[in-house]
Amino acid sequence: MTVARPDEVRRFNRASLLRRLHVGGPATRAALASELGLNRSTIKMLVDGLAGDGVVEERVPRLAKGAGRPSLLVLPQPQAAVVLAVDVQVEHAGIALVGLGGQILGRNSWNVRGRGREPDELACHVAESAALLAADLGLRPIAAGVSVPGVVRRADGLVHTAANLGWTRVPFGERMGTLLGVPVVIGNDAELGALAENVRGVGRGASDAVFVSADVGVGGGIIAQGAPMRGSAGYLGEIGHMTVRRGGRRCHCGNEGCWETEVGEAALRRALGLPENCARGAIVAEMRELHRDSDPVARLGEYVDWLTLGVVNVVNILGAELVVLGDLFVWLPDAVVAHVRGEVSRRSLVGRALGGVRIERSSLGADLKLLGAAEAAFEDVLATL
Amino acid sequence: MTVARPDEVRRFNRASLLRRLHVGGPATRAALASELGLNRSTIKMLVDGLAGDGVVEERVPRLAKGAGRPSLLVLPQPQAAVVLAVDVQVEHAGIALVGLGGQILGRNSWNVRGRGREPDELACHVAESAALLAADLGLRPIAAGVSVPGVVRRADGLVHTAANLGWTRVPFGERMGTLLGVPVVIGNDAELGALAENVRGVGRGASDAVFVSADVGVGGGIIAQGAPMRGSAGYLGEIGHMTVRRGGRRCHCGNEGCWETEVGEAALRRALGLPENCARGAIVAEMRELHRDSDPVARLGEYVDWLTLGVVNVVNILGAELVVLGDLFVWLPDAVVAHVRGEVSRRSLVGRALGGVRIERSSLGADLKLLGAAEAAFEDVLATL
Repeated sequence: MTVARPDEVRRFNRASLLRRLHVGGPATRAALASELGLNRSTIKMLVDGLAGDGVVEERVPRLAKGAGRPSLLVLPQPQAAVVLAVDVQVEHAGIALVGLGGQILGRNSWNVRGRGREPDELACHVAESAALLAADLGLRPIAAGVSVPGVVRRADGLVHTAANLGWTRVPFGERMGTLLGVPVVIGNDAELGALAENVRGVGRGASDAVFVSADVGVGGGIIAQGAPMRGSAGYLGEIGHMTVRRGGRRCHCGNEGCWETEVGEAALRRALGLPENCARGAIVAEMRELHRDSDPVARLGEYVDWLTLGVVNVVNILGAELVVLGDLFVWLPDAVVAHVRGEVSRRSLVGRALGGVRIERSSLGADLKLLGAAEAAFEDVLATL
Repeated sequence: MTVARPDEVRRFNRASLLRRLHVGGPATRAALASELGLNRSTIKMLVDGLAGDGVVEERVPRLAKGAGRPSLLVLPQPQAAVVLAVDVQVEHAGIALVGLGGQILGRNSWNVRGRGREPDELACHVAESAALLAADLGLRPIAAGVSVPGVVRRADGLVHTAANLGWTRVPFGERMGTLLGVPVVIGNDAELGALAENVRGVGRGASDAVFVSADVGVGGGIIAQGAPMRGSAGYLGEIGHMTVRRGGRRCHCGNEGCWETEVGEAALRRALGLPENCARGAIVAEMRELHRDSDPVARLGEYVDWLTLGVVNVVNILGAELVVLGDLFVWLPDAVVAHVRGEVSRRSLVGRALGGVRIERSSLGADLKLLGAAEAAFEDVLATL
């Protein structure tokens, strides 16, 4: 239960305005007033304050229509608030400096192997790269967001397990915070992917959506009523480990017949008839080939059935209107996506009630988790800027 | 994005105070001040206002400790705000008048058969019973909440489908609103069950919980970050129709191997070796017998496996810390609940991270959905009282 005191109202309005500009981009004062339900004098006061602090700039719009004085265009200044985004993946790591408004101002990435995957080693590498990048660009990040493929406790940045990295109970958020000297938010990669899609991707503005991605593992992030679900004590659920096949293949998590074992990278390799342990590039190449196949649904066989079953389940459980497919799923041919869309719309009660469920491939490409990590960092920043 | 204007602050604080009293019961002014983070003079002003309107009463607490003047106890007045709660079930319907603070002030119920199950007939019966009950008690409900076992659109009270009632696209909320002449909120029975458990039951105060119940069908309601999930456009998901057994029994929903077909009333009857279509009373009697069985887990056989699998899945997908079992599940013996608890804690990543997941039977008994329907109605009432 939160209680608004009169002296908090101005700060609240300032944060709302900033968030609107950060998420929606430049807008005229008039548009901001109507969208935020504030009168023009309040908007003027807030914008003047932000402009004085160098957070926004005002310009006469180029194409001012009609008579009268045109409403000034308010533009967020990317360099006024810069955050560091960190994307830890199984095979590589990436960092980016992201400015107010969501623009990537600079980036760096490297392969992660052997000792480079150990938490201390990796944390040092991230901190050094970030310092170099910031110096090159003449920027100073004021917060950081980190995406990790594992079970993460948001409150203190403890990575409980990241099986595919071989991490157990790693206080990675704390370590990064010490090295970087700024507040660090750490999140599960699928949760941050969902956040990125919701703020900047095909899931923009969706109220109830699920982001599902296949990398080495399968993960999912949930948007419920416009905000990412965080799970108990910050431990998000793991969609990839719902059991879809009782008595099925053994999963590294100890259970059997997990969705991950039926639709993850290894399963895709099997479905494509590729040798075990072939490189990821080979999978992607084969998936591109598949686009020319006359019947890719038949070609992938049972794989499509398990994919569909899992998507039907998450839609039925969550009442989602949209499912965004990320990572390796992005390479699925149109015919497969259309097949899943048809099946899910037919087999979910919500799909029938709404007349269909949207199934889309992620549009944010390789930047997805960096953008999600940046948004996680921006959440707190915008409230205090 | 909501914007707080200074003139809304007082109304907001009044609603917060009222909600605290409604949910948490009587408290001293001092306790209210500290819980709500308001200073004592603000609390005094708000309480005086509510007392003047007859919404609360103040009393000197009986057991005032220490020296000094004791802080006055503030008590919500049940008759100051009364809502009508309606619980439509497949076999019977019930109504109750529920006062501020959640107390049931009076009730009525009747069997529902044949034409009595048709929407118009049922709506009339509800309205007439409610009018009689209100007249008897000398009360006037100011809003109504209705629980329906089906896919419901919250915004306008459209029941898209309630398969077990034989309803399709019934504007039941609208109809009830016309007959009752007060605002009507209509919700899915499992969603309202979850709300009741979260406000008044074993799920009190839980942040992330799932309420799962077996009646004729199997339904589930989800509490995420302290509030019930509502799904897309108000269409809540249907946990009972996740596929747990590909190629399994055909479900009335058109799919096969739904969780409902493996753990619903019919499945429980099969597991207990009872004849098809035997009365519900016989199932309950047999479940009571089961409590004396030396190994009820073995006796129920595969039924327990499917129950466990479904609970593991919802916990893994949602990252829930608590699962509340309702309706027929309430009769499961301790040994079965303990077995499910052990398996879920072991087989869910969240369970392992948190060191276990709570699995509890509902404590609210037959009043569950009435209390949930009442809370749904109170949500809007408290904001404007």
